[in-house]
Amino acid sequence: MLSVEELRDIVEKNIAELDLKTKSPAELYNPILYTLGSKGKRIRPVMTLLACQMFSENIDNAILPAIGLEVFHNFTLLHDDIMDNASVRRSLPTVHKKWNANTAILSGDAMMIEAYKLIAKTPDCCLRDVNNIFNDVALGVCEGQMYDMQFETRTDVRESEYIEMITLKTSVLLAGSLKIGALIGGATSEQAELLYNAGLNTGIAFQLIDDWLDVYSNPEVFGKKTGGDIVENKKTYLLIKALELSDSSNKKELLHRIEKKNFNESEKIEAITKIYNDANIGELTIKKASEYSNKAFEYIDKLDIETEKKQNLTELIKNLLEREK
Amino acid sequence: MLSVEELRDIVEKNIAELDLKTKSPAELYNPILYTLGSKGKRIRPVMTLLACQMFSENIDNAILPAIGLEVFHNFTLLHDDIMDNASVRRSLPTVHKKWNANTAILSGDAMMIEAYKLIAKTPDCCLRDVNNIFNDVALGVCEGQMYDMQFETRTDVRESEYIEMITLKTSVLLAGSLKIGALIGGATSEQAELLYNAGLNTGIAFQLIDDWLDVYSNPEVFGKKTGGDIVENKKTYLLIKALELSDSSNKKELLHRIEKKNFNESEKIEAITKIYNDANIGELTIKKASEYSNKAFEYIDKLDIETEKKQNLTELIKNLLEREK
Repeated sequence: MLSVEELRDIVEKNIAELDLKTKSPAELYNPILYTLGSKGKRIRPVMTLLACQMFSENIDNAILPAIGLEVFHNFTLLHDDIMDNASVRRSLPTVHKKWNANTAILSGDAMMIEAYKLIAKTPDCCLRDVNNIFNDVALGVCEGQMYDMQFETRTDVRESEYIEMITLKTSVLLAGSLKIGALIGGATSEQAELLYNAGLNTGIAFQLIDDWLDVYSNPEVFGKKTGGDIVENKKTYLLIKALELSDSSNKKELLHRIEKKNFNESEKIEAITKIYNDANIGELTIKKASEYSNKAFEYIDKLDIETEKKQNLTELIKNLLEREK
Repeated sequence: MLSVEELRDIVEKNIAELDLKTKSPAELYNPILYTLGSKGKRIRPVMTLLACQMFSENIDNAILPAIGLEVFHNFTLLHDDIMDNASVRRSLPTVHKKWNANTAILSGDAMMIEAYKLIAKTPDCCLRDVNNIFNDVALGVCEGQMYDMQFETRTDVRESEYIEMITLKTSVLLAGSLKIGALIGGATSEQAELLYNAGLNTGIAFQLIDDWLDVYSNPEVFGKKTGGDIVENKKTYLLIKALELSDSSNKKELLHRIEKKNFNESEKIEAITKIYNDANIGELTIKKASEYSNKAFEYIDKLDIETEKKQNLTELIKNLLEREK
């Protein structure tokens, strides 16, 4: 069994070997190379390969589809950055800032097609299934992004709506990555479905921890300034629960601070963090994340394969969820 | 054999029956319904069904992939309209004007995925081939759009570059529509390739005629004002050839009129039309279009099937090329 690090190396090597450098017009393909070159954690393709490895000694058939899932993920970041008017991604200028919005739209479109090309390298045995899973996942991600944009102008987002949104925007792609890897590895549809559900719950837990880290992480360890979500009034799990659970005076202050156009950033972060603390929102979020991660591990437990074969995936998920708190 | 009109009715009926109306969030799917509802000529799916019909009595297997090609075409219009900042398409406000740019980007992305879902309904026999053809076509269209945008800021576009651009932006999708229909109908790869080449040449002829119509059509018949391309300095075949073939004083005036920011529209149209007339650009364009359409018919002639089976396609192409001159 290859380790997570070994699989990540395989992913990096195969991304570096994509034939995008030689294609014309360069202005279409350079933003794709730029986006793929700013290395993320490659979680999705590593998950695909881990899932494949659980059922097959040979992971070769899963490598290009795995890369396709990473290319798709990076495409969504590229287009999301236009919609969010984000300037920086992974410490580099976003594509629409470095080039322009038209180039970002069009290179993003080409990037989605490149993702489909790679996923179409799936062997005959499961090409149709993988096509179907990927199409559903890809639409789900778009639906999630639309809900996320709609939440920007609302202050009455319910917890269940938020969980649905992050399920679509984040979790279905993790879940699909596991399921596709499992099927290419020869898993039964029941086994693949267990991994899909493990991925869904992992994704939700992951996003809840991400929301928590924005407020409570040690910025020196986490690598980015805390409070960014608070400044932008992002409808995180913490804000939604604080609006639901705060006493009336704190709720009033919270709404006031959300509406206020001119404010001192650190003062806003401090005041809202205090409101979160008053209602124990931090602990509540960690508790909720644990519920989802426990569910993820339960699904993995149910898999009828040797425990050793599950170990690498279990470790990866644990590491994901216990990031630099 | 079903007529072009009967096939168009099948296309309309199946577009109307797509399950997009019931999907959430409505804000994601409504722009797709809106775009598909403003009926175009449905040339691409009709071509797919015509090609299928040449080789098979049953066209059912080709219907959803054909619709997928129409959905993809309309997706490209949606995103192109953002990039071109176009306000009106088929007499209706464009999606990014009626909603906003973010909605247009995201609904466009979802629309491309819906196209892939429909194309994935191709039967097992040729699913992999159709995937591959469609991916190459889709990337080609993006490459063509990038070249088209790059030409906006150039006055030295060569004829060969222009033909390459319209081949990618317009022709490969027509060619791919024919090829995919043929393969689903059971054509050999040689037969499918002949139709692909017929489609490529048809597309080029079609775009050259379109360029000509913008200047020389009867606006009462053509349905839109002439001279739009001239006003916008669009790098059409006519402008490229006029820059190449005009005498030095006309070329100087042409460049001057292209650069001038403030101008009277009808004066500019009249002056540039005169320059075109001086160098016989109109006739040259029609001659060039005929060369390409003749090549298209030669490829169809080479097909080893009964002449009657080719008739509907030949008629459609003739009608396309002899639009409301």
